[in-house]
Amino acid sequence: MSEKNPIQALIEKLGKLPGIGEKSASRLAYFILRSKGSYAADLAFAITEMKEQIVLCSVCRDLTPDDPCRICSNTDRDRSLVMVVEEPHDLQAIEKSGVYNGLYHVLHGTLSPQKNINPKSIELEALQDRVKSESLKEVILATNPSVEGEATAAFIAEALAGFTLKVTRIARGIPVGADLEYVDRHSLDQAIKGRGIIETGK
Amino acid sequence: MSEKNPIQALIEKLGKLPGIGEKSASRLAYFILRSKGSYAADLAFAITEMKEQIVLCSVCRDLTPDDPCRICSNTDRDRSLVMVVEEPHDLQAIEKSGVYNGLYHVLHGTLSPQKNINPKSIELEALQDRVKSESLKEVILATNPSVEGEATAAFIAEALAGFTLKVTRIARGIPVGADLEYVDRHSLDQAIKGRGIIETGK
Repeated sequence: MSEKNPIQALIEKLGKLPGIGEKSASRLAYFILRSKGSYAADLAFAITEMKEQIVLCSVCRDLTPDDPCRICSNTDRDRSLVMVVEEPHDLQAIEKSGVYNGLYHVLHGTLSPQKNINPKSIELEALQDRVKSESLKEVILATNPSVEGEATAAFIAEALAGFTLKVTRIARGIPVGADLEYVDRHSLDQAIKGRGIIETGK
Repeated sequence: MSEKNPIQALIEKLGKLPGIGEKSASRLAYFILRSKGSYAADLAFAITEMKEQIVLCSVCRDLTPDDPCRICSNTDRDRSLVMVVEEPHDLQAIEKSGVYNGLYHVLHGTLSPQKNINPKSIELEALQDRVKSESLKEVILATNPSVEGEATAAFIAEALAGFTLKVTRIARGIPVGADLEYVDRHSLDQAIKGRGIIETGK
C-alpha cells in the first residue's frame, strides 16, 4: 500500500482539473467515495475508454472514436462547405444548435505570438490540404470574436486567398434578445459595421 | 464498441458530480482527453483505488484506508476528548488547522426531519457506545452553526445527558479578522450571548 491516503491521492489528481480548487476537489472525491452502485467504476472506465478510443479525425481534426469521423463520412451533409472552428467544443455547440449542415475543420487553437502559438501549431496545413484536394465552394471562418480569433481568421483568409473559393466570416453583432443598452461597444461597433439593407416590397 | 461517443459518455458521468454542469463536464472531459503523460490513467486508478481501499473506521466512523484509523490508533493524542463533526471533510479541516489533539467522531449527516434523516441515519448509536466503553472526559459538539447543526448538537447533548462527562459546544461568534459592520446578525447575536469576561491584572 502506498504511503499516501487514497482519498488525498484522488483529491490531488482532481485538483489538477481546470477550475477545480482544493475544496472542490475534496467535495468531488467524497461524492465519488459515497456514490452508490457502479458510479465510481463507471467513471474510471469512462476516463480510460475515452483516452483509448478517441483519435484525431484525419480529415477535419475533430476528436472522434471513428476515423474519418461521422460528420466527415456523412454523405447527407453539404460537402462543399467547411466551417473552421477553434476547438472541438465549438463544433459540438454548432452541431447541437442544428443550424448548419456542412463539414468542419478544427484548428485546436488560435494564433498567439504571446503564447508562442504559430501557424504550424494549429491545424492550418491540414486545412490547406483539404482546400487543394476537396471540391469546396466556401470556407466559413467561425473562430471566436476575440482578439486571437479575429487575428486567426484574418491570417487564414490571407492563406487561402490564392484558391478559387469564397472565404467568409461569421457575423458579429448584437446577440438575439439582448438589450442595446447593455451590449458592449465592440458588439455595437460590429453590429453597425455589419448592418444590412432591409428588403421591402417596393 | 458502444453506440455512444466515449467523450459524451464521460461528459455524462462527470455531469453527475456535485456543482459540475454540462459545460464544466465538457471542459473537464476535453482536458482529460488532452492531458499529457499518465494523468488520465492515474486519475482512473485513483478513483478505483480509493473506492476499493477506503472503509469506515469502526471506532470514529471516519473514512480511512486503515481500521482503526490513524487518529484512533495514535497513542499520542488526548484519548479523553472526542470532537463530534458532521462530515469527514470537517475532520480534515480541523486536522489541517492543527489546533486540536483529541479524538473525533464523524456523524455523516445532521438530523433533518424534512430530509427524513433521523437519529438512526447518523452515527449516533456508535457515539453512545463509545461514551459507554471509552474513558472520555468531554464530548465537544462541533457540528456546523446551521439550523440542522444546532438541532443535532442539542439532540446529542440530550442523548448524552445521563453520562458522567462534560458535553460542550464550539463557540460561535464573530470570525477573527471580520468587520462588525459586515457580520450577519446571527453571528452578532451569538457573539454577544457568548461574551466572556476580560481578565485584567487587578
